Amino acid sequence: MAGLASVIGLLHPGEMGSAVGATLVAGGSRVLWASEGRGARTRQRAEEIGLEDAGTLERLARRAEVIVSVAPPHAAVDVARAVAALRFTGLFVDANAVSPETAREIGRIVERGGARFVDGGIIGPANRRPGAARIYLSGAEAARAALLFAAGPVNAVALDGPVGAGSALKMAFAGWNKGMQALLMAIRALAAAEGVDQALLAEWRISMPEVPARSERTIHDNARKAWRFVGEMEQIARTFAQAGLPTGFHDAAGEVYRRLAGYKDTATPPSVEEAIAALLKRVTREGS
Amino acid sequence: MAGLASVIGLLHPGEMGSAVGATLVAGGSRVLWASEGRGARTRQRAEEIGLEDAGTLERLARRAEVIVSVAPPHAAVDVARAVAALRFTGLFVDANAVSPETAREIGRIVERGGARFVDGGIIGPANRRPGAARIYLSGAEAARAALLFAAGPVNAVALDGPVGAGSALKMAFAGWNKGMQALLMAIRALAAAEGVDQALLAEWRISMPEVPARSERTIHDNARKAWRFVGEMEQIARTFAQAGLPTGFHDAAGEVYRRLAGYKDTATPPSVEEAIAALLKRVTREGS
Repeated sequence: MAGLASVIGLLHPGEMGSAVGATLVAGGSRVLWASEGRGARTRQRAEEIGLEDAGTLERLARRAEVIVSVAPPHAAVDVARAVAALRFTGLFVDANAVSPETAREIGRIVERGGARFVDGGIIGPANRRPGAARIYLSGAEAARAALLFAAGPVNAVALDGPVGAGSALKMAFAGWNKGMQALLMAIRALAAAEGVDQALLAEWRISMPEVPARSERTIHDNARKAWRFVGEMEQIARTFAQAGLPTGFHDAAGEVYRRLAGYKDTATPPSVEEAIAALLKRVTREGS
Repeated sequence: MAGLASVIGLLHPGEMGSAVGATLVAGGSRVLWASEGRGARTRQRAEEIGLEDAGTLERLARRAEVIVSVAPPHAAVDVARAVAALRFTGLFVDANAVSPETAREIGRIVERGGARFVDGGIIGPANRRPGAARIYLSGAEAARAALLFAAGPVNAVALDGPVGAGSALKMAFAGWNKGMQALLMAIRALAAAEGVDQALLAEWRISMPEVPARSERTIHDNARKAWRFVGEMEQIARTFAQAGLPTGFHDAAGEVYRRLAGYKDTATPPSVEEAIAALLKRVTREGS
């Protein structure tokens, strides 16, 4: 990692990972991925953005100077362990939605394997619109790691903070954004359960006119991604606990997303009525 | 209660109660209050809006055809019990922020004493600006009770629903409004605890530009009222539980407001920094 360009291993080019991969490729790096055990859609995305298939994690770790981990929160520690087991001695960038404590744990794992560590958190939608998303990096080599992202579309921001700061920022941002959206969906479900849904919408139109549409957009935009947010809410609750703050907001948000997890991979988002029925754990009639 | 005007007992003309009282007076009713055990500020408000002092609850209950209860959530059941013990046989309107279940319990209490019951919930700020607040009423006599409020400034809406609907609507509205604000304050505290407060504000300015100012307004507007919201959050959590929804959002919101309860009756709202320190249960230096 003398200059900007490096050989970088990307684990894994999923939806957000491919936006990160496209950024690293745009910056002039050779970006490897490991197809072993990954699905057809991941391969398609990897080829589309110009990644090289190293085949296995082992070959990827041997060739890469930098590894960037973009995984669901529950898998983040396992990815780090697998890389550490291969005695990877380059720079490991964890870009996952995990608590600062989990980030520090991941750092210790990869450092014991011989790597250096940068903590990161990605904020913004998983698309390749320039400036849509930012990766916040922290730790001693944050500024150097940020150079790899200089070309965008994902922008990098090196925080003036230790390992944990990048993850903490992600937890705070998502804690509001996804916590608030889970609460709003739960409120719609509560009003429906009590038979006052229409009255609530009418009151909102008077006093909070943007909320009716926002509540429906929230259901539309989040139901199919809800399965991914369950682990993230757990990490946020842990972050709250570490700071001596109550965990209930995100324990509850996790439960809301868990009840919507069945919409993973559905062709279209559920209607508001269907989502509310799922949140209330009511069985909807077939075809309804 | 043959026409619009009645003799109405108001328990009690506090901040929100006096907006309700002014409405009832404007509608042509004689409105009584009971000064026994109430403070100087309540007396001042009562006189200002033209209420007649019945002295004791007993004399109030003997003379009133209608009693309207506007009390903190934790006191709502006690007010109903005291009225029922006096064998009040008129119409009892509970306008408190309680769960539908608590509203139904209050209904049973006053009905056992011989009264008729209307369930209500007030939404909106405690001021006398016309149309600022609405009282939602439910139960068999909701439409008749609504007539008493016809002159405003507090508007009445009779819901087409049973006892419980008025309270449920209040719980849903406040569950979003006050739950969301508690979450936002907790997020500011989390970011401060992790040293990423400035970074979070900078990210919000990019992706959610209205949130930095909203988070500060939330602290400014709510800290001194927080003590009143603790019981309300408990009622909302119970409402969630009854609907089979997770209680954590409002368990946590209750804890947030509890940590701010010390700002009751302070001359000025706390600064953002002070409020954050209270949320993190950190002791701030004197004079800081």
